[in-house]
Amino acid sequence: MAFDKIDITFKEKLILESNDQLDKCEIAYETYGKLNKNKSNVILVCHALTGDQFCSGVHPSTNKKGWWDILVGPGKVIDTNFFFVICSNVIGGCQGSTGPSSINPKNGKQYNLDFPVITIKDMVEAQVRLIDALGIEKLFAVIGGSMGGMQALVWGALFKNRVNAIVPIATSYRHSAQNIAFHEIGRQSIMADPNWNKGLYNEFNVKPSRGLAVARMIAHITYLSEYGLQKKFGRNLQFSSSLSYRFDIDFQIESYLKYQGRTFVDRFDANSYLYITKAMDYFDLSNRRGGLSNLFKNNDATFCFFSFTSDWLFPTAETKTIIKSLNSSAASVSFVEIKTDNGHDSFLLKEPEFHKILKGFLSGLTKKLGL
Amino acid sequence: MAFDKIDITFKEKLILESNDQLDKCEIAYETYGKLNKNKSNVILVCHALTGDQFCSGVHPSTNKKGWWDILVGPGKVIDTNFFFVICSNVIGGCQGSTGPSSINPKNGKQYNLDFPVITIKDMVEAQVRLIDALGIEKLFAVIGGSMGGMQALVWGALFKNRVNAIVPIATSYRHSAQNIAFHEIGRQSIMADPNWNKGLYNEFNVKPSRGLAVARMIAHITYLSEYGLQKKFGRNLQFSSSLSYRFDIDFQIESYLKYQGRTFVDRFDANSYLYITKAMDYFDLSNRRGGLSNLFKNNDATFCFFSFTSDWLFPTAETKTIIKSLNSSAASVSFVEIKTDNGHDSFLLKEPEFHKILKGFLSGLTKKLGL
Repeated sequence: MAFDKIDITFKEKLILESNDQLDKCEIAYETYGKLNKNKSNVILVCHALTGDQFCSGVHPSTNKKGWWDILVGPGKVIDTNFFFVICSNVIGGCQGSTGPSSINPKNGKQYNLDFPVITIKDMVEAQVRLIDALGIEKLFAVIGGSMGGMQALVWGALFKNRVNAIVPIATSYRHSAQNIAFHEIGRQSIMADPNWNKGLYNEFNVKPSRGLAVARMIAHITYLSEYGLQKKFGRNLQFSSSLSYRFDIDFQIESYLKYQGRTFVDRFDANSYLYITKAMDYFDLSNRRGGLSNLFKNNDATFCFFSFTSDWLFPTAETKTIIKSLNSSAASVSFVEIKTDNGHDSFLLKEPEFHKILKGFLSGLTKKLGL
Repeated sequence: MAFDKIDITFKEKLILESNDQLDKCEIAYETYGKLNKNKSNVILVCHALTGDQFCSGVHPSTNKKGWWDILVGPGKVIDTNFFFVICSNVIGGCQGSTGPSSINPKNGKQYNLDFPVITIKDMVEAQVRLIDALGIEKLFAVIGGSMGGMQALVWGALFKNRVNAIVPIATSYRHSAQNIAFHEIGRQSIMADPNWNKGLYNEFNVKPSRGLAVARMIAHITYLSEYGLQKKFGRNLQFSSSLSYRFDIDFQIESYLKYQGRTFVDRFDANSYLYITKAMDYFDLSNRRGGLSNLFKNNDATFCFFSFTSDWLFPTAETKTIIKSLNSSAASVSFVEIKTDNGHDSFLLKEPEFHKILKGFLSGLTKKLGL
């Protein structure tokens, strides 16, 4: 059985954690593979801050490979010859799901900053609606890295009866002070751009591109490791063999970062960046239902965590904290730390050990569940 | 013997590493304590990126304590009852020494971006001139943290006959790719501020305050440690017991950072920030005179390095690299790593072990040199 891929519009209002609501909610999603007869082969893949629903194949806007094409596809780790993969754009996003650039049904104008502040749980509530609409009762697994891992954890904690396995990668049960700090500076940078116009830039036909580029550059450093940067770029010069003694580009690392900033603004909406970073900053599972130790009681899902040694945005210590809670609730939990220099971005890159273990986990679970 | 403290203006041109020159060069400096008869008790204290000549006592502009008042003063670690301390504002700075906001003698207007790009060695050349003018042949020690440590290293490498001891603290022999990256983003943020006006903001009577504030906030995170931030701020809310679901301040860390940005723009010049960060980015002792291993040959100075365990801007590994070179040149070198959560900023803070060891080092050397 295959779905015709049509983005779904829900007309029942979605109540948000802020107590605000979205009267109409559109979810843009992609599917890969074929749903089996008893709908038991579904993997929900959750994207990170700047990702989208195009996790496999070629992205229709950028013409580049989808952000997880390395993992998702026929014969790959998340094998779409066997699994039916769903990936949806988070609400608050800018690739078709309802977000700040969507039309507010109340006044027929773009929401902009009238869009309500959303949370990771709100994003997941929208996903649950999508899964319901597709008639799927129980997911085989929810898998995601970084903010995608936060969504996976919410599925595991709050929708545990709807999912067999949770695979949180390079993530945490809460955003740290340092991570909030980096995000806040990114937001300040966007809001300091005069083109931002208090979020109304679309009405003025401009974009706060310089502010958004700086925000992206800040974030980008945190996705890499100090060692990785040094190894890849070191103090290599971009154009000549000597320093320019000007404020142009001297070093390759400067050129690389500027490129990252420049290309990002073409594909991402500044207000969405504000909303999604805020949702991540608000994320803290430990303040729900009496804390982490209670949150995962009586949980039948199987958890498999991955962290990366050089990831300083979501260091292994964060994963260990939640592992403790899961273990103290006798949950079925395993944890792998992958040795790598690729920093936080490791979850997106060619990491053979990570890929091999994830493939093994999915295959083992397939047998265990008698698929 | 005491000097009347008068900032010095040199009319002989200062040739810079860029081959450009400063026709006139003013150096603003402060002294603390009394010069002894044979001028053998002089310690040159070098300031970091946003520091200045007011290392001890009360700062005349901010009315706050000088940046190293904790260490420099009567009876303190750098005891001005015994030592004569000199601290000068670096060229490129904004506290009286010649910098981008100084008047260009060629046209009677502010330099702004016509000011030549300077290097750490250029800063030291200006200090050498000051020391010459004060009639001091040999310094007892040059001491500095962060960029101040870079200056100390240049003294040790290129002016080794003018100094007995070098104390580089929380520093490196070269700026890393990651550090260049953070600086470049700070510069981009300043230059993206429409008030910057290609560096001519003074002519328009405006300041690129928002861009400079963002630059400072970025840098400020790198001065602290992830653990320290978590311990001090965690996810504590600033105003209320619940999230605001708005883009105002929610977390204490956000409020703290904004405060850091806001107060910084009152005391620092945006163009100076561009020039001084560039000087730090250009710093690489390993590309001089056949590299580190040759640079410290036949060096009679005594080196004492300090690093801090949680300093991720200048990690201990960087210090270890230069220590190897010094040891392979049979230099007199010692090295202490201080265990602390205070990150890079440790060199400015109450760190009893650091202070005790530095006091011991200075006192031991005093005896050794027969002072």
